[in-house]
Amino acid sequence: MARFIVEVMLKPEILDPQGAAIAAALPRLGFAGLTSVRQGKRFEIEIEGPATAEKIAEIESAAELLLANLVIENFVVRVDE
Amino acid sequence: MARFIVEVMLKPEILDPQGAAIAAALPRLGFAGLTSVRQGKRFEIEIEGPATAEKIAEIESAAELLLANLVIENFVVRVDE
Repeated sequence: MARFIVEVMLKPEILDPQGAAIAAALPRLGFAGLTSVRQGKRFEIEIEGPATAEKIAEIESAAELLLANLVIENFVVRVDE
Repeated sequence: MARFIVEVMLKPEILDPQGAAIAAALPRLGFAGLTSVRQGKRFEIEIEGPATAEKIAEIESAAELLLANLVIENFVVRVDE
């Protein structure tokens, strides 16, 4: 069994209203000194068998097709050791 | 400037309908051999100054208070090198 982590974040130039809301709320709750908060998604995907190069490429295709919107988001695939 | 990553995932015993929907959709799109998909949240938080132990504790408090619902979610805080 292998486990992949797919991290999907809005591109830096795209406005992130959720992140902005958190960045505005934290100082009101007593947390100072923040310069930026960005919110994204994280997927844990488990597959049968080992994490071969072919399987990594498959997960990257799946991320492009279903998990990320490449117009506004970037993604990273990592093998979870 | 220091950057923290906060990863928030549903606890393993909590049903994850988004992850289940993705796990059901991927085989229909031609991706076989998946055993599990879980979806969570990922936050990138930037602060002024270095990542001291005190700042890490502050980010952990913020995660407990605002970013994660500890009844159903676990979180991890990492310093992004």
